[in-house]
Amino acid sequence: MVSLAALNTFKCFGGTVGFYRHDSLSCNSEIRFAVYLPPQADAQPVPVLYFLSGLTCTEENFITKAGAQQFAAQYGLMLVVPDTSPRQTGIAGEDDDWDFGSGAGFYLDATQAPWSAHYQMYSYVTQELPALIAEHFPAQTDRQGIFGHSMGGHGALVCALRNPDRYRSVSAFAPIAAPIQSPWGQKAFTNYLGSDRESWKSYDASELVVQQPFKDTILIDQGLADSFLANQLMPEVFEQACASVGQSLNLRRQEGYDHSYYFISTFMEDHIRHHAERLCG
Amino acid sequence: MVSLAALNTFKCFGGTVGFYRHDSLSCNSEIRFAVYLPPQADAQPVPVLYFLSGLTCTEENFITKAGAQQFAAQYGLMLVVPDTSPRQTGIAGEDDDWDFGSGAGFYLDATQAPWSAHYQMYSYVTQELPALIAEHFPAQTDRQGIFGHSMGGHGALVCALRNPDRYRSVSAFAPIAAPIQSPWGQKAFTNYLGSDRESWKSYDASELVVQQPFKDTILIDQGLADSFLANQLMPEVFEQACASVGQSLNLRRQEGYDHSYYFISTFMEDHIRHHAERLCG
Repeated sequence: MVSLAALNTFKCFGGTVGFYRHDSLSCNSEIRFAVYLPPQADAQPVPVLYFLSGLTCTEENFITKAGAQQFAAQYGLMLVVPDTSPRQTGIAGEDDDWDFGSGAGFYLDATQAPWSAHYQMYSYVTQELPALIAEHFPAQTDRQGIFGHSMGGHGALVCALRNPDRYRSVSAFAPIAAPIQSPWGQKAFTNYLGSDRESWKSYDASELVVQQPFKDTILIDQGLADSFLANQLMPEVFEQACASVGQSLNLRRQEGYDHSYYFISTFMEDHIRHHAERLCG
Repeated sequence: MVSLAALNTFKCFGGTVGFYRHDSLSCNSEIRFAVYLPPQADAQPVPVLYFLSGLTCTEENFITKAGAQQFAAQYGLMLVVPDTSPRQTGIAGEDDDWDFGSGAGFYLDATQAPWSAHYQMYSYVTQELPALIAEHFPAQTDRQGIFGHSMGGHGALVCALRNPDRYRSVSAFAPIAAPIQSPWGQKAFTNYLGSDRESWKSYDASELVVQQPFKDTILIDQGLADSFLANQLMPEVFEQACASVGQSLNLRRQEGYDHSYYFISTFMEDHIRHHAERLCG
């Protein structure tokens, strides 16, 4: 059994929030993550819903601010929330930028040195972490969903589109929906993947959905007062790509909402219900 | 009109979270506070529910972590959340301790120099802030409730017991229920109020309730895994005081819960409903 250290646990809505760390093989680094076990997990295995966080976040932001546990408890879903990158890897400059390196792993497998030695978050999220969860927690491993915010919304869409057999449901809050066209995406892809833009396409939801649509409706909420909307997020590019191949998309443009957890928490119940309808029962 | 500066606003559950600062006359200092305006406030004045936070908190912790806005929106309550003390007053040593000075105003009016020049949070919370809210926000000023956590639970109980005409409802999460007997309370009272213990009684809920019970049931939630329970909080002292005078008290001992916002958020809906039943309709 892979070693796993519990850092802290807290009773919450009848279940348990726990923070964990372990030595990741994919990332050759310690990685931290949070798990919410709903009360139903005391009696039986439960479906698992992964949340991928945005730039600068750790495994803690979502658990403290999103208000998700009450609905996970209501529907009987386990929540799993990894950190957004390896940390303290020793790579020079890893902490220099808020939108690259630490806190900005972009949920891809880096191919360029020095990042490729540690920044393998795509493999971590889609393979290593689910295997670890299956080993240590009462998980129904055939019932997995994934969602996320901003960089993590990008990550959720990419993971689901590339692994429709692994995820039954996907949704996103304000995702970086066309990263090849966004400054955040271009900076990350250039440094992690190199200058060959062809290699970028396997981490761009608007490219991937055209190659292979998802089997189910994708739910996206996007605030119209989000200062990153036009320049970084570009949901309209993903919307057009979905339309071109008949991908069912429920893109909800929310008047007055910005990019913050005040926005995320407002629509959390709808997202958890979206996943619960597809993962439970 | 007293000047009030909005620092930030965020749309949240159909209403608006706002952070404000102003020059407090009571405290002779800038004070910050947060307001949540529910969507109902667009059309008409709404009742006001004050939340007093615990040691080390600012006006932000409750708004980001407690999950209260969804229920305030549901019932049509305004939330008002002041900072826990004046800050940057220039008093020597104000930032030295986490349980005294900055972040630890204890919701009292200090009588001892140098603190008395600024630390007047009792007057601020019960008089200055409500007047400011009435002036700047659509408040039903005859419909006020108050609740809080830990040091702020102490503050809520004291404010309500001393001003039954101002508050229709009161509740608390893990309050410092008998501060005269707790190390936190003794340290604060000695330094803010001086060594005459008679003066301490007007800021101790377990003393006050015997003198003048509250007109309505007091709701308190207390986690049984709270590491401060036996030494600092002492709800059993308050429980006995209430019993001695026939004060209606709903003290709920919650198995497994600690002192954190994971505990507070779990029982937030019950507290908001307790206040809404007494403030709305």
